[in-house]
Amino acid sequence: MITRMSSLFLRTLREDPADAEVPSHKLLVRAGYVRRVAPGGYSWLPLGLRVLRNVERVVREEMDAIGAQEIQFPALLPKEPYEATNRWTEYGPNLFRLKDRKGADYLLGPTHEELFALTVKGEYSSYKDYPVTLYQVQTKYRDEARPRAGILRGREFVMKDSYSFDLTDEGLAESYQRHREAYIRIFDRLGLDYVIVSATSGAMGGSASEEFLAVAETGEDTFVRSTESDYAANVEAVTTPAPAEQPVEDKPAAQVHHTPGTPTIGTLVDFLNQAGLGRTFTAADALKNVLVKTQRPGEEDWTLLAIGVPGDREVDLKRLEAAVAPAEVAMLEEADFARNPFLVKGYIGPGALQANGVRYLVDPRVVRGTAWVTGADKADHHVVDLVVGRDFTPDGVIDVAEVREGDPSPDGRGVLVAARGIEIGHIFQLGRKYSDAFSLDALGPDSKPIRITMGSYGIGVSRLVAVLAEQSHDERGLVWPRNVAPYDVHLVVAGKDETLLAGGEKLAGELTAAGLDVLLDDRKASPGVKFADAELVGVPTIVVVGRGLANGVVEVKDRRSGERVEVPLDGVVAHLTDLVKG
Amino acid sequence: MITRMSSLFLRTLREDPADAEVPSHKLLVRAGYVRRVAPGGYSWLPLGLRVLRNVERVVREEMDAIGAQEIQFPALLPKEPYEATNRWTEYGPNLFRLKDRKGADYLLGPTHEELFALTVKGEYSSYKDYPVTLYQVQTKYRDEARPRAGILRGREFVMKDSYSFDLTDEGLAESYQRHREAYIRIFDRLGLDYVIVSATSGAMGGSASEEFLAVAETGEDTFVRSTESDYAANVEAVTTPAPAEQPVEDKPAAQVHHTPGTPTIGTLVDFLNQAGLGRTFTAADALKNVLVKTQRPGEEDWTLLAIGVPGDREVDLKRLEAAVAPAEVAMLEEADFARNPFLVKGYIGPGALQANGVRYLVDPRVVRGTAWVTGADKADHHVVDLVVGRDFTPDGVIDVAEVREGDPSPDGRGVLVAARGIEIGHIFQLGRKYSDAFSLDALGPDSKPIRITMGSYGIGVSRLVAVLAEQSHDERGLVWPRNVAPYDVHLVVAGKDETLLAGGEKLAGELTAAGLDVLLDDRKASPGVKFADAELVGVPTIVVVGRGLANGVVEVKDRRSGERVEVPLDGVVAHLTDLVKG
Repeated sequence: MITRMSSLFLRTLREDPADAEVPSHKLLVRAGYVRRVAPGGYSWLPLGLRVLRNVERVVREEMDAIGAQEIQFPALLPKEPYEATNRWTEYGPNLFRLKDRKGADYLLGPTHEELFALTVKGEYSSYKDYPVTLYQVQTKYRDEARPRAGILRGREFVMKDSYSFDLTDEGLAESYQRHREAYIRIFDRLGLDYVIVSATSGAMGGSASEEFLAVAETGEDTFVRSTESDYAANVEAVTTPAPAEQPVEDKPAAQVHHTPGTPTIGTLVDFLNQAGLGRTFTAADALKNVLVKTQRPGEEDWTLLAIGVPGDREVDLKRLEAAVAPAEVAMLEEADFARNPFLVKGYIGPGALQANGVRYLVDPRVVRGTAWVTGADKADHHVVDLVVGRDFTPDGVIDVAEVREGDPSPDGRGVLVAARGIEIGHIFQLGRKYSDAFSLDALGPDSKPIRITMGSYGIGVSRLVAVLAEQSHDERGLVWPRNVAPYDVHLVVAGKDETLLAGGEKLAGELTAAGLDVLLDDRKASPGVKFADAELVGVPTIVVVGRGLANGVVEVKDRRSGERVEVPLDGVVAHLTDLVKG
Repeated sequence: MITRMSSLFLRTLREDPADAEVPSHKLLVRAGYVRRVAPGGYSWLPLGLRVLRNVERVVREEMDAIGAQEIQFPALLPKEPYEATNRWTEYGPNLFRLKDRKGADYLLGPTHEELFALTVKGEYSSYKDYPVTLYQVQTKYRDEARPRAGILRGREFVMKDSYSFDLTDEGLAESYQRHREAYIRIFDRLGLDYVIVSATSGAMGGSASEEFLAVAETGEDTFVRSTESDYAANVEAVTTPAPAEQPVEDKPAAQVHHTPGTPTIGTLVDFLNQAGLGRTFTAADALKNVLVKTQRPGEEDWTLLAIGVPGDREVDLKRLEAAVAPAEVAMLEEADFARNPFLVKGYIGPGALQANGVRYLVDPRVVRGTAWVTGADKADHHVVDLVVGRDFTPDGVIDVAEVREGDPSPDGRGVLVAARGIEIGHIFQLGRKYSDAFSLDALGPDSKPIRITMGSYGIGVSRLVAVLAEQSHDERGLVWPRNVAPYDVHLVVAGKDETLLAGGEKLAGELTAAGLDVLLDDRKASPGVKFADAELVGVPTIVVVGRGLANGVVEVKDRRSGERVEVPLDGVVAHLTDLVKG
């Protein structure tokens, strides 16, 4: 197929759009792939739509390959199913809601769990029908508070969402695994640099939820990765290795010290190091006890919770929230301290907590046999050499201390470094939340109902176009991976000479006959303008029909490396076919 | 590609859905192609989505072939462009409107003229850029008062809409013609029985607007067609041939008669025929003067309009509305008669109308030299032999009398008969309405702006799936035209014998290798159930692997004709490939 630039609906821009901050947004607009229509709403111009369709094709092929079946729901959905699962309310302002002419409530679907569950319930009844996996590639809507970065975070976007329906937990684990492998194939075929991060810690069930993050400095998601292995995780999901336990018998006895004016770890360590105790203390030797309060869903009262972490670390609020979910967590207020006078601010120790029935959880590093400096539950006093398992026993472990670059990787290989990414996929063992809401059962072989268990799997299809641009560009423009490039070859006629144009047309025809998609720059513009546009548009192979034509050669340039070779005309079709199909 | 019925997400139904009235709705639901999710909102199950995609493919191929370029807009659109053209208001309750989290107004696009015009304005500036034609295949929304007939009239549906942008009226006419031809190719490839009807009468500019109507008894649109030619038109667009004018000189003089108690055509004709005037009168000899009032947009006052039609015909309100548009039209009320005492109800004649300045338009049959019986503007009196061009001269012609079966076809060949259809396409020379609204100009060679002229062209893509089902089914189920069928071959394993299943799998594999798409019924169900499902699902070729397999033959059945042939196993791949590709 030949597309001629002289008639292509395309105008490239020399200037970055004023509202663009990230490279993909700037370049996709400048190169004429997308145009802004509304906040978070973009139109796809011809080049952009071709790339989007190529991404969709790869996604569909791999979904079909694992036996997923494509269907399609409306985007305009009635309220009722979303009320049944409470998401009509839970979504808050992120949901676009509207009324029809009769006043009935509708929403624009942000995700379709309810509809898939109801549809399977409507069609299937016997255990013999299962398992089944369904998917759609569909336009979705979320009323983002801050749509940003062009198509990277829009309010109308294309997603592939799929759902697996299994009779057993083992079946769900298999469906999950198949999706995981399909996603790896998809992102590999797209040539993406990405990591798979555990989205939740082991506490919620191992690999029940993983995110695929494309590595990108401009990403909104932070994660950590190992310097020496494939390990990567959201900070919420990092597990801190526990040191070996130690015998308690040979440890010195705990001693209470008068430590006036030391309510912080810094002042405490300074005081102790000047107190002439015969050894040097660091913040890591202190056990800092942080008080919060939690509230379980449906409960009115808040409950105190104490968390002991090494003195050189803060509690990470995101990790804490993930650890106590679905309970809510909040900091203590003055009134809480007033109500609980045993909490001596700056000097809280395990003794008073446990004597007063406050649940006390500690960092994984606080193992049996370790000795700590901590509060003595009395103003201006701390206790030294308080030994776990001898002097106090915590109620359990909670892994919510901040994760730092240089921490050992949980897999024992290398240390952690921080990175940023963009979520491109999410796989999730959803379980029975939606099948419970809609009583989605299969009739078992014994005629008893079996509650179906679901998995939910998403890929941000339109976002991927931006992510690819984000990962693959240079200062001159876009550089598309071959699998998604809008054309196989960008053929530049470098001059206004009729012979050149005829040569370009002839070559374009031959390439098309060989099955390649050709973008032919047949415009009257100068070679400089054409070269600049070719670099900006980012087709991976640029062929220049120029002065060499008289000598029977054309130039073939690799957009990524910039490498140029002269190729004889009679071999160029084979040369390019090898490049493209190879 | 093989799809196995044992795992296909499909449940066929033996009963028609309770809410279905038309065959396509019943069958598409029973055969598991679509499912209702909301009023006018349907999900596409795997079989349905395959047919929809096939229709989309044909549409895209023909649009690409005329050089139209595909782009895609959001469905969620800001209010402002639609306010600029007044359509935000004009659409009334048919438009889905909503607000975002900040309270800004949005709509769900029913059609995208505004966005296309604005986008072309944004990209193009020089006359050298034109002409250009853009299209999209997109989900559209209309809050229909009465969504009906499944996907035939939904509130969320897929449309192909395209727009041409030309510098000149001649260019627009060419773009229009190219679309017209592309639409003919599309509907021909889909195997549809359809007519092209003029959507508006010549008064609005010849073929400036045509509709493609699929012939269907269940259609909502009525039209007339000739018994002896291709002529077809909406009744609004039918042009009544005018008879030849006649000399006025030799006509008898007009005579006023006392015709007591004859306010209707029926009573008048009866009276005259009993009055011994020496000839027989029919209703067609009377000139019936119908009074209405019209109001132009923006005007406060209503103006009287008198319409003279032959006494055997009523004024067709739809034709009248189309003829006076954009003015509104209404019937007279008692107060109007009271205000205009010269209007003697039942006895209105041309004399008083013209004496009092009422605009008087007549049917095309009321030509110079024809003589009529009509009101004498005095209760219980009529005038006979009132001759046009001698006794009165109308202010003009208006073609709004009812069109009847048996009327001569306007092209002079055959007579008209009434028919019903479903609108599947509409092509329209839009002109400069939208380019005026947005000042869409090209800079001409003389540096002067050229106002762009637009054409607008639509195809109801999802509706076409229902229309195809409507036109192509029998009492046992659907019968898909080969170009859109969900599969090439429906291969039924007629028995539970392992040998049969193995034979079916082997044949399916061979057919797939030959490039055919195969639906393999490998279920444990009885042959009777499988045959019934195959008829219902409607794949055009059904292959039965049954008892004949032992003798090396399978049965090949044509779904439409019911014809069956036995084909030897070693020739069946070639046989089916010929059928499908041939």
